[in-house]
Amino acid sequence: MVRAARQGRARAPLRLVSTTMHDGMPTPFDPSRPANKQDKLLFTPGPLTTSLTTKQAAMRDLGSRDIEFMTLIREVCDGILAVAGLKADTHVTVPVQGSGTYGVEATVCSAVSKQSGALLLVANGAYGLRIRDICARHGIACTTLEYKDCEPPNLSDIEKALAADGGKHTHVAVVHSETTSGIINDIEGVGGLARAFGRSLIVDAMSSFGGLPIDFERANIDFLVTSSNKCVEGIPGFSLVIARKTALARCKGVSDSLVLDLHAQRAALDAGGQFRFTPPTHSMLAFRQALRELEQEGGVLGRERRYRANQQTLQAGMRELGFELYLPPHLAGPIITSYVYPKDKNWSFDTFYNRLNDRGFVIYPGKVTMAEGFRMGHIGRLFPADTTALLAAVKEVCKDMKILGHH
Amino acid sequence: MVRAARQGRARAPLRLVSTTMHDGMPTPFDPSRPANKQDKLLFTPGPLTTSLTTKQAAMRDLGSRDIEFMTLIREVCDGILAVAGLKADTHVTVPVQGSGTYGVEATVCSAVSKQSGALLLVANGAYGLRIRDICARHGIACTTLEYKDCEPPNLSDIEKALAADGGKHTHVAVVHSETTSGIINDIEGVGGLARAFGRSLIVDAMSSFGGLPIDFERANIDFLVTSSNKCVEGIPGFSLVIARKTALARCKGVSDSLVLDLHAQRAALDAGGQFRFTPPTHSMLAFRQALRELEQEGGVLGRERRYRANQQTLQAGMRELGFELYLPPHLAGPIITSYVYPKDKNWSFDTFYNRLNDRGFVIYPGKVTMAEGFRMGHIGRLFPADTTALLAAVKEVCKDMKILGHH
Repeated sequence: MVRAARQGRARAPLRLVSTTMHDGMPTPFDPSRPANKQDKLLFTPGPLTTSLTTKQAAMRDLGSRDIEFMTLIREVCDGILAVAGLKADTHVTVPVQGSGTYGVEATVCSAVSKQSGALLLVANGAYGLRIRDICARHGIACTTLEYKDCEPPNLSDIEKALAADGGKHTHVAVVHSETTSGIINDIEGVGGLARAFGRSLIVDAMSSFGGLPIDFERANIDFLVTSSNKCVEGIPGFSLVIARKTALARCKGVSDSLVLDLHAQRAALDAGGQFRFTPPTHSMLAFRQALRELEQEGGVLGRERRYRANQQTLQAGMRELGFELYLPPHLAGPIITSYVYPKDKNWSFDTFYNRLNDRGFVIYPGKVTMAEGFRMGHIGRLFPADTTALLAAVKEVCKDMKILGHH
Repeated sequence: MVRAARQGRARAPLRLVSTTMHDGMPTPFDPSRPANKQDKLLFTPGPLTTSLTTKQAAMRDLGSRDIEFMTLIREVCDGILAVAGLKADTHVTVPVQGSGTYGVEATVCSAVSKQSGALLLVANGAYGLRIRDICARHGIACTTLEYKDCEPPNLSDIEKALAADGGKHTHVAVVHSETTSGIINDIEGVGGLARAFGRSLIVDAMSSFGGLPIDFERANIDFLVTSSNKCVEGIPGFSLVIARKTALARCKGVSDSLVLDLHAQRAALDAGGQFRFTPPTHSMLAFRQALRELEQEGGVLGRERRYRANQQTLQAGMRELGFELYLPPHLAGPIITSYVYPKDKNWSFDTFYNRLNDRGFVIYPGKVTMAEGFRMGHIGRLFPADTTALLAAVKEVCKDMKILGHH
């Protein structure tokens, strides 16, 4: 049933918005309504399936230096601090055009001096290692503690490295939810060590912020980077850096890029309420609506509950179908789940992917370090009912492909 | 009449899309229809007023690694080459997330080596000088030939500089339409000199590409940078670099930024059809629609015709009201027009701006080097009728303010 309904529209041409609207007003968080009837559901780490109302909010043209847009910027920056549970007297939001990686590079090249600083990088996946690439480009000294993508970082390694470095590493960086595998790293453990040794902590919380609670105080975070199109469920276009004000102040004059200068970006917003360079006005409009819908859902805890329900629904169904998790269950977060390729002579990821795609479900391949697997996401405007629909499609595809004993 | 109609909706709350759609299908390029009934008209250099259909095209969530999106990327890149009148065997489009300045910085730091290169910068406005700032950040040697924002660059200065530099300047950079004043620079003259001396030419055509014809061959352009939200009339979110393939090949390994590496960005697109980092999927969808509408309007020449009609309407009306042009008319392009502040004791730019804004018209302040003036744009989904409506509002505001003899 579900499959038939989805199949019918998977390849349908783009309909005008009014058609969708004739069904009546969209009801946010009503699991019975798909987010957008014409699009495939995205079980990916982003861009994600977003609500119709979020996309509708973007359908305006605002002047980038107009008071209405300046108010919007303030609301977005304040809204992000509220989601983080932080106050404007100690912390500040810096929006940066471009994807999440732009925010990470902006933070690293603005915070860590190539003359007098160095980074201790804790990496267990492709997104962690990307920070090493960033340092290499900018000529920033970087020591990497590298772990397999299925194992958590060893805190005692970090402690030893910091105890022995004579203060060389001014900053420590770690990814919170490493999307390579879906593992959740112990940022409070890493942050506690950074605090003990007087180092500044940078957290890449791209795929977790808004969907998992983060205690900035306990984790001792100076800089946290996330993106407009992850757990807040906006559309892509910009990244967001939440910075401790005292830490951001030390970034002045550090960046060797103009557009990626975090301090200059915030200084312009403070001075004139405007971005330095043309902002993604439409994405910002969508993001404000997405923040409102996050609040309506009960904030981070409400959203986490839905993501965990998605995760549990998927994992139970996939287990029943014979798929095996890549990560030990206690390490996995509710953002994305990795599966190893089935050991079956009929298995082909491309076929599996394409047949799910034909049915209206987009899943995600494995990432560099986890090449022999695939991923299915839980974030975005997806509900357990959507996950159940995905599972029904997976079952049918397994039968079609004659894998895992299904036929 | 016009004023009353606009005033009534200037502060109106956001209506749902379906309301707008009940009026019937939008008709592209029908001057009698404002682009979006709820928004102010943007007489700015961007973000611009865009068509309803362009914004509607963005109302989909596509997976960034899905075949449908990869096809979209290809269509956008091919479409841009077609607008430029170039072929895929010699040239290539590189989309870069972020605003136009991101594209300029990506081009400069990917093309000009800080070890073995140097840039000869021809600047007559704030956007030209921004390239000097970019070079300073990256440690790229840059010699600036600086002119007033109301005067054209002197070609014989450029010739002398290139003749005398012993080949030091590997690249020459110039802005085509310098938005600071609206002046159009002679890129064919500059490019001819670059060719004569065997140097590579970088053109910032941010606000002109798509609205003014550009002859890549005559101007000897190796890299041209534009943005999604200028004359193609898309929404903001990314910049576009059109590169000569042989010139882009020489960029390999040059960039000291990961995200701004033009060569790596194109290499990833060539290898897998995907962006390296999360692309602005919604902006790309809007842009494809905008490209179609550019073609429907008769391409660059059709669009130029409309912009020139906007310009002529504005200039005739403003002259009649007593405003004075900042630039000598023969230097000014049809992108944006600069006016000097009226010499009138009742003049206040803030009041003038705010009262026009209250009536639903957004104009633009002067830019750094042209501080004692203001600007009014001609690009975006604006028609002579919109400009006439703006002029009616300007006349009323002049009366309210008792300036230039109006009362």
